Amino acid sequence: MKRAAITLAVDAHGGDHGPEVMVGAALDAVAEDPGIEIALVGIPSDLQPWLPASLPPRLRVVPSECALQADARPVSVLRTGTASSLGRAMELVGGGAADAVVSAGSTVALMALGVKMLGRLPGIRRPALMSRIPAANGFTSMLDLGANLAVDASHLVQFAIMGVVMHGRRDAPPSVGLLNVGHEESKGHAVVQAAHEYLLELPLNYHGFIEGNDIFAGRVDVAVCDGFAGNLILKSSEGLARMLFSELRRSLRGRTRARLGAWLAAPAVRDVLERYDPAQHNGAPLLGLRNVVVKSHGSADRPATLQALREAGSEARREVPMHIGELISSYGADSIQ
Amino acid sequence: MKRAAITLAVDAHGGDHGPEVMVGAALDAVAEDPGIEIALVGIPSDLQPWLPASLPPRLRVVPSECALQADARPVSVLRTGTASSLGRAMELVGGGAADAVVSAGSTVALMALGVKMLGRLPGIRRPALMSRIPAANGFTSMLDLGANLAVDASHLVQFAIMGVVMHGRRDAPPSVGLLNVGHEESKGHAVVQAAHEYLLELPLNYHGFIEGNDIFAGRVDVAVCDGFAGNLILKSSEGLARMLFSELRRSLRGRTRARLGAWLAAPAVRDVLERYDPAQHNGAPLLGLRNVVVKSHGSADRPATLQALREAGSEARREVPMHIGELISSYGADSIQ
Repeated sequence: MKRAAITLAVDAHGGDHGPEVMVGAALDAVAEDPGIEIALVGIPSDLQPWLPASLPPRLRVVPSECALQADARPVSVLRTGTASSLGRAMELVGGGAADAVVSAGSTVALMALGVKMLGRLPGIRRPALMSRIPAANGFTSMLDLGANLAVDASHLVQFAIMGVVMHGRRDAPPSVGLLNVGHEESKGHAVVQAAHEYLLELPLNYHGFIEGNDIFAGRVDVAVCDGFAGNLILKSSEGLARMLFSELRRSLRGRTRARLGAWLAAPAVRDVLERYDPAQHNGAPLLGLRNVVVKSHGSADRPATLQALREAGSEARREVPMHIGELISSYGADSIQ
Repeated sequence: MKRAAITLAVDAHGGDHGPEVMVGAALDAVAEDPGIEIALVGIPSDLQPWLPASLPPRLRVVPSECALQADARPVSVLRTGTASSLGRAMELVGGGAADAVVSAGSTVALMALGVKMLGRLPGIRRPALMSRIPAANGFTSMLDLGANLAVDASHLVQFAIMGVVMHGRRDAPPSVGLLNVGHEESKGHAVVQAAHEYLLELPLNYHGFIEGNDIFAGRVDVAVCDGFAGNLILKSSEGLARMLFSELRRSLRGRTRARLGAWLAAPAVRDVLERYDPAQHNGAPLLGLRNVVVKSHGSADRPATLQALREAGSEARREVPMHIGELISSYGADSIQ
């Protein structure tokens, strides 16, 4: 297996679960993948309690001086610079000592430090956050999920191209849909209207406008929208799935007959639950930077954090940033105004 | 029971299910509610096949000359005027011959004809489409759902006030949340930031920013956002619920043990399904006009259409437009710039 060196930044004292899960996930990652190297970047006293007496091969600790807080504003993130775990991790990657950054920090911090220390790919106007959403026939790659709250048409077009590269479908060119309030060409505000016109001109497998329900129906491979709507869609869907399953569980516990039925049906229900378990999908790439950056959820546990590390390794091996740069340039999408 | 006169506009040949369901729902409505009067407005030859030999009391037919198509643009909707079923229905209500309009027409058509023929309430800048979303402790009233794709802060503030009137909670003032990409005060674009500042000044039970998952967690009674994001959230949630239940059904059918379990658990599962059945929630009020206007879903069946008629009757009896006008004026929200 090709080698991949990942920096795992331990900020905000390691997310909701503390540094323990980040150290644990790093140990799991080097144990399962002989091509992975991990640099755990954090405050030594945060990490120390969870480290084994002797570190396994391909795992090292890089000390940082401070941990960014989850709600730190961009200006303070930038001021802290390479003193923070994330800043130090970015510095290692920017300098070529590693290939990818994984962090449970905020989108705002990843954007600010990513743009400053790694830089955008040539021609890319705005990086975008992507995620894979479980859909009827596999998954839908959706972006942007909150890196850009207001966009213009050129941003949406570049998001579409980055999504196509990331989707990585091999059998056919990934299909792209632009999220809108209706399928008809007349629908939508000026920004989606202009992006639609651009996308029709490009040699993409462009499907046109899609609606919210098409995301889960798997009508397209890549669904594109601004980060404000995308973030609300993602979080409301997570909230709905969580509530539906908790209501089902409560309803099934309520009656003897249902309880027996639930026990019998449990393995089948578990299959569905697992497919919608956010941990299975943790690791949202921030696309458009010169290096691989993966955002792990603040509430990620050890298996979910491991999943984010796998995602970073896979993107580094596929050289996703290089391929994005190539496609943006070959489509002339670096000069859209 | 107080009387309520409703016009039911049969356009686009009656939605996905044809005029049959609209005639059927009108018959059901006058049968169940002795205070309801319904004027079925449509092309006589569309309605005739489904009407009983003699009309029941309180149901009459008002002929129209044409049916609007689902994708009609505003300019052609307005040009058709009172020749269409919706235009004729609005004319009856605007002239005082009825209290409310129910239509399965497009949001665009309802907005265009509603503003022109009924008029906005004094001080209201934009009407907004609302819906009740099932949530952990009942439901969340959410608006706007697609009537306004781009908004400014004053629109969002007025949506909040209209949502409070509609929510109709009696035990305590309804709580209001502004949808955003994070709970922190620093989050969001300029429009939500400005709306947040306004809302803090008003004597509302304002909770501050909420995130997508808070809608289903029932953190607030009224959730406010622009119509572009709102429409995408609503449709993606409907799509996710539909897919989750179909996957559960498929998974439960796959194994003998699960099949037996599913049979035993079916009544409990059905309880949850029914709570999330869109038909239970059909009938989205278009708020901010001088009269009651309720949008029925294009795919509404007979029970769902009946639900929209009940919604219209209830709003007319509660005199929702008058109460919205009063609260907008008493909060001075008619003069926000």
